[in-house]
Amino acid sequence: MKAAVLYSGGKDSSFVAVMLERLGLDVELCTANFGVYDSYIPAAKSAEALGFNHRVLKMDKSVLSKTCEMILEDGFPNDGIKYIHAQTVERIADEYDIIADGTRRDDRTPKLTVNQIRSLEDRKDVSYINLDSFGHKSVRLITESLYEISHEKSNRDNSSDFEVEIRTLIDEMGGNSLDIFPQHYQTRVIGYKK
Amino acid sequence: MKAAVLYSGGKDSSFVAVMLERLGLDVELCTANFGVYDSYIPAAKSAEALGFNHRVLKMDKSVLSKTCEMILEDGFPNDGIKYIHAQTVERIADEYDIIADGTRRDDRTPKLTVNQIRSLEDRKDVSYINLDSFGHKSVRLITESLYEISHEKSNRDNSSDFEVEIRTLIDEMGGNSLDIFPQHYQTRVIGYKK
Repeated sequence: MKAAVLYSGGKDSSFVAVMLERLGLDVELCTANFGVYDSYIPAAKSAEALGFNHRVLKMDKSVLSKTCEMILEDGFPNDGIKYIHAQTVERIADEYDIIADGTRRDDRTPKLTVNQIRSLEDRKDVSYINLDSFGHKSVRLITESLYEISHEKSNRDNSSDFEVEIRTLIDEMGGNSLDIFPQHYQTRVIGYKK
Repeated sequence: MKAAVLYSGGKDSSFVAVMLERLGLDVELCTANFGVYDSYIPAAKSAEALGFNHRVLKMDKSVLSKTCEMILEDGFPNDGIKYIHAQTVERIADEYDIIADGTRRDDRTPKLTVNQIRSLEDRKDVSYINLDSFGHKSVRLITESLYEISHEKSNRDNSSDFEVEIRTLIDEMGGNSLDIFPQHYQTRVIGYKK
């Protein structure tokens, strides 16, 4: 049974990938790209380090443009990130029977509500899986023993989050992405624990 | 890392047990018993068939009595089942760092709310895991390839659900448990798929 995992190379999307593989699914890792910056490279490296197939999901640039317009209008990223995530989930739901992402029980955004999940599963005849079974504490406890993680100050070449292309396009549009996304630390999975 | 799974021998609690074991946790399966009927035997057999340690969790009979009183007063089991489940979760939370049960995203009862989970984790310094990551469709898709399941008309010797001791005590108290719990089909895990 084939399952697509929306993949950033981070701790949470790596966790759901490993979990589904160990439950017997044939897992393919998918990273969205909107043609603005090759931000999928860190995710592709993490996928390779963990032994998974990785696919770059070419998405329409108009989705990214609308996301950036929303964020510039709002002055903060929450609704824009929610939008770009939901659009990407819809896209992979057209192509796979099982789709998954690494959103946890205690994540706020991006996150599908129970009603959005039901609607998605019914409309697309798909099963959606996330990390709602787990809170941040249990994810940390389990992942610490599963794989090695790098912690670095975020920059546009060490992350495959949506944020990278959003920042790039906001700056191209004349906005200042640093006003909207403060610098933070980035974790990326770099291999299994020996 | 030790984890306790609240265990009935059914498809869902077996699923969470296998999942946590494959993620590297040291899993112990726990079945509550209130001293009214030896209803833990089917769960103990399923645990053995899957190669897990199994523990009978001796619970205070007063919890079962209160449950039956609630159910008789309400005329339906939902709130009583929710109560006995929550009491059992509280009890295992005193003894383990990680506790889990097999409640799915689309289960209605018994089920802890997000606020109950937060309160439990904070008060007891514990991590709680359930099957909220999954809906019934993805659980079915995955479990079909994991293990063999028996389907039988439910009776008090082929199930370890709370229902068995609740029925027994309700009948002893002069109620008629068949009015409250209609006969249904019972699934029990009997071994891994070869």
